[in-house]
Amino acid sequence: MNLKALFDLSYGVYVVSAFDSANARHTGCIANSVMQITSQPASIAVSINHDNHTNGCINTSGYFAISILPEKTVPSVIGRFGFQSGDSIAKFEGIPHSIKDGLAVLDNACGYIICKLTDKLETSTHTVFLGEVTGCDTLLSESPMTYAYYHKVIKGKSPKNAPTYIDESVPAQKVYKCSVCGYVYDGDIPFDSLPEDYKCPICGVDKSMFKAE
Amino acid sequence: MNLKALFDLSYGVYVVSAFDSANARHTGCIANSVMQITSQPASIAVSINHDNHTNGCINTSGYFAISILPEKTVPSVIGRFGFQSGDSIAKFEGIPHSIKDGLAVLDNACGYIICKLTDKLETSTHTVFLGEVTGCDTLLSESPMTYAYYHKVIKGKSPKNAPTYIDESVPAQKVYKCSVCGYVYDGDIPFDSLPEDYKCPICGVDKSMFKAE
Repeated sequence: MNLKALFDLSYGVYVVSAFDSANARHTGCIANSVMQITSQPASIAVSINHDNHTNGCINTSGYFAISILPEKTVPSVIGRFGFQSGDSIAKFEGIPHSIKDGLAVLDNACGYIICKLTDKLETSTHTVFLGEVTGCDTLLSESPMTYAYYHKVIKGKSPKNAPTYIDESVPAQKVYKCSVCGYVYDGDIPFDSLPEDYKCPICGVDKSMFKAE
Repeated sequence: MNLKALFDLSYGVYVVSAFDSANARHTGCIANSVMQITSQPASIAVSINHDNHTNGCINTSGYFAISILPEKTVPSVIGRFGFQSGDSIAKFEGIPHSIKDGLAVLDNACGYIICKLTDKLETSTHTVFLGEVTGCDTLLSESPMTYAYYHKVIKGKSPKNAPTYIDESVPAQKVYKCSVCGYVYDGDIPFDSLPEDYKCPICGVDKSMFKAE
């Protein structure tokens, strides 16, 4: 069984949000497993890990929202929603957002979808939530980010001008990779010369969390 | 509610197949709603319309396979699997395929995934099938087709050299569109001059099914 076959499934990149009544604030997380199931009425399925704080908030509140991220999403948004816990930080603080039908959605999104929870399917690690679409609209006229784009252009080194990761015709140089989110440092300043308060642009951890490879 | 927001969800394009015991042959259909749910053990969710012949075959056989279509998939494969019924035609006849763990998968695929049905979620029009991955492998080293690519490049007029659908600086010309699958004729020969046995390259219907717009 070659599980690399699963890497060729195509996804988008989304912020799935819900109201967190225990902390009296909106919360959310990054998800790629979102798909439309029915058209009349429109319904959406989204898969969220049990360990994710947003999972319990969807269960408790009975509603969730999806913000469709564009390619030009700033990495810090993915770092905030994808690599930090909504139980300990206010996910939407400082992030441009609006409240639609009582749920927080990102302003810098291709569009948003508000869903009322109607059913769910439990698996060993994830819940597949099914929701009826109760509201939705388009926002920015931008290309939606695909998960493949995120992996190639944002998380890893951009392949646009560098089809091979390390040019083997030149002496190998150390590659610094974030041990939390996998981001590979790609700046012009040598990594060792970066200021000590440098933080990972994706997940926000300290410079010390980068490992040379 | 502006349902155009749903158009920005990202998907791939797949052939989902199952054994059809009533007709003693393999069958399958096109699906875009496929996503990985868990990683250990790996599981996959796929959404299939109740009216689709493959839906009943998955229910009866308890197994399904996913062939991940590459961008270079020939349109006739999408026409065969996406616009004709497996109850009346042998879907895999003449299409290069292999049998993996008792299920038919396309040879011209980025990879395949074999799943054992473990659970399902019923909606008004579709079944969301959940399957544990029992086998999978990569095949062609090609870019997987996204649903956006299918819509822009295959189903509609290719936008590669024609960012606007009709150049308004030249006199408008008739556009011929397949009334079954939406394919827009884009050949060099004027549509009216095509032979009478011309068939839609996507869904295979006769020339008479094209309407001028």
